[in-house]
Amino acid sequence: MSKFWSPLAASLVPYVPGEQPKDKTYIKLNTNENPYPPSPKVIEAIAAATNGDLRLYPDPTCEALVKATADCYGLSPKQVFVGNGSDEILAFTFAAFFNPEKPVLFPDITYSFYKVYAKLYNLQAELIPLDAGFNIRTEDYSRPNGGVIVPNPNAPTAQLLPLDAIRDLLSRNRDQVVVIDEAYIDFGGESAVSLIDEYPNLLVVQTLSKSRSLAGLRVGFAFGSEELIEGLNRIKNSFNSYTIDRLALAGAVAALQDEEYFRETTDKVIRTRERVISELKELGFKATDSKANFVFISHPEKPAKQLFGQLREKGVLVRYFEQPRIDEYLRVSIGTDEEMDAFIQALKEI
Amino acid sequence: MSKFWSPLAASLVPYVPGEQPKDKTYIKLNTNENPYPPSPKVIEAIAAATNGDLRLYPDPTCEALVKATADCYGLSPKQVFVGNGSDEILAFTFAAFFNPEKPVLFPDITYSFYKVYAKLYNLQAELIPLDAGFNIRTEDYSRPNGGVIVPNPNAPTAQLLPLDAIRDLLSRNRDQVVVIDEAYIDFGGESAVSLIDEYPNLLVVQTLSKSRSLAGLRVGFAFGSEELIEGLNRIKNSFNSYTIDRLALAGAVAALQDEEYFRETTDKVIRTRERVISELKELGFKATDSKANFVFISHPEKPAKQLFGQLREKGVLVRYFEQPRIDEYLRVSIGTDEEMDAFIQALKEI
Repeated sequence: MSKFWSPLAASLVPYVPGEQPKDKTYIKLNTNENPYPPSPKVIEAIAAATNGDLRLYPDPTCEALVKATADCYGLSPKQVFVGNGSDEILAFTFAAFFNPEKPVLFPDITYSFYKVYAKLYNLQAELIPLDAGFNIRTEDYSRPNGGVIVPNPNAPTAQLLPLDAIRDLLSRNRDQVVVIDEAYIDFGGESAVSLIDEYPNLLVVQTLSKSRSLAGLRVGFAFGSEELIEGLNRIKNSFNSYTIDRLALAGAVAALQDEEYFRETTDKVIRTRERVISELKELGFKATDSKANFVFISHPEKPAKQLFGQLREKGVLVRYFEQPRIDEYLRVSIGTDEEMDAFIQALKEI
Repeated sequence: MSKFWSPLAASLVPYVPGEQPKDKTYIKLNTNENPYPPSPKVIEAIAAATNGDLRLYPDPTCEALVKATADCYGLSPKQVFVGNGSDEILAFTFAAFFNPEKPVLFPDITYSFYKVYAKLYNLQAELIPLDAGFNIRTEDYSRPNGGVIVPNPNAPTAQLLPLDAIRDLLSRNRDQVVVIDEAYIDFGGESAVSLIDEYPNLLVVQTLSKSRSLAGLRVGFAFGSEELIEGLNRIKNSFNSYTIDRLALAGAVAALQDEEYFRETTDKVIRTRERVISELKELGFKATDSKANFVFISHPEKPAKQLFGQLREKGVLVRYFEQPRIDEYLRVSIGTDEEMDAFIQALKEI
């Protein structure tokens, strides 16, 4: 605590990202990264942009990337916003759309950054409990609110809401913005992007970090009606005119244009996930119905916290949340087949 | 205006960056970019980082870059913060340190983003007039305030405050944070970084965009007491854990380590500036005493707005501010000698 901090800075409880230990080499299954490298075309595009033009500012409107994203998703460029990772876009979203006079609604078990954003922008938050099976009940989101945000699939539970449920959520909240955070949608879900023409209150947020293997490049995007995209641009242009650097712009365009590589690596992750879930079940674990690039598992006899520590000792990092309702679960990212074999082997030894 | 915007989004007046026209190739002297490419070592370092590891998140603590910055400036890593361009750091600064109950003080003629940040964080702003010679009078910054921010050299006036004046400013405001925005300090000024051990209320902000020729990479840094750096980290970690991508981290470390290239290109810009100022004076212009990589000039007979348009027609972009007190001035970035010859030639033709 410092006398020089603003009341805001003093009141914050910052987010804690997954650990990135440097003491030894781990099998890293703790931050939901993609085990496959980005498309070779991304590497080529970045190499081509690595030149003297780095002395010049990037295009502040990100025109080429906005267009590539719009083309990839069959939208108009006016329905697309791009940012420095989807985390930045989520922060802008809380500032741009959520009404401070009523609580923002989101699940009690979800991405833990949401409550941090709420504090950053002086918003009230109301956490809506998932049901006993960790499902989001859309009927619980009918109460008065200043906005709604729901990840789909949810994290860390990995469970998916079908498009009909998203429609229901939108219909119940026509006067507020409803944000669907689709960081993991490409691993088996159906995107709500198809609904943006129908619901001007819908903002869909996605990222290149997971399904496009580019967590290290920091690019995310949002889809919505023109008025929502303009709202995001108002915040962005009051914060930083140039949020995405020249190399990230070039790499992101190439990633969106290589559909084939994207399908291939995404399918591999899904196949590995299905195999791993069935092997885990053989070991007595229960697992939620994952449509993400991670699984959420629990063992009836082995305490999750203890398993987390034992796996770490064996060089396998997973994520454990010391939090009511899920403190008997582990979140395990899907790695390569070899990495997952090592993980299963470690579990067998334990 | 949209019913879905928050009261904050609706109230903002976003910043407008210098134009980046795409209709033809201009001699671009309008956004204070460096005319020389970044160090070849930067290009090498980025090329080496362009690999499959882009699938992994960057280090959220930016440890290697913080250390390289600390080493370069003779500081402890705890006195260094790094961000996605100095604009992002300035935004975090307004949120972290400025007290909403009293006005933030800054010059009436200065970087126009400051008043945008103030609005973004619901802060009052009090604009302190420069004197008739465009000088900052430190004695005017003794009134009650919630924080002070001053660029040094100031923009767009290009004029420098000596270190004694900075000391005076700090001594008058020991209970508030005083931010010295040194985006242009390397072109002839003396940095206040030497004062941070003495003044725990001093935050110095710098950037790789200007003197390190990396506007396209988006990296800035701040120097200050440990408690100020911790304040910035509290905001950052409530906003986006990973603000700098892997490529920018690699390139920035290399830029800070190539002192020789930095000196060489900076000296060239300074020499060109001095020559251009004397040629402009021969053409009847008056120019402020620039210690930046741009000049601020005015002609007794030629209206600035008209000159701006005529230069544009001749393919030379400069910056004109339609704003009281400086609407007879042009801000002209220092380009290569060839570019500046073309600029002078265009003026002669006009």
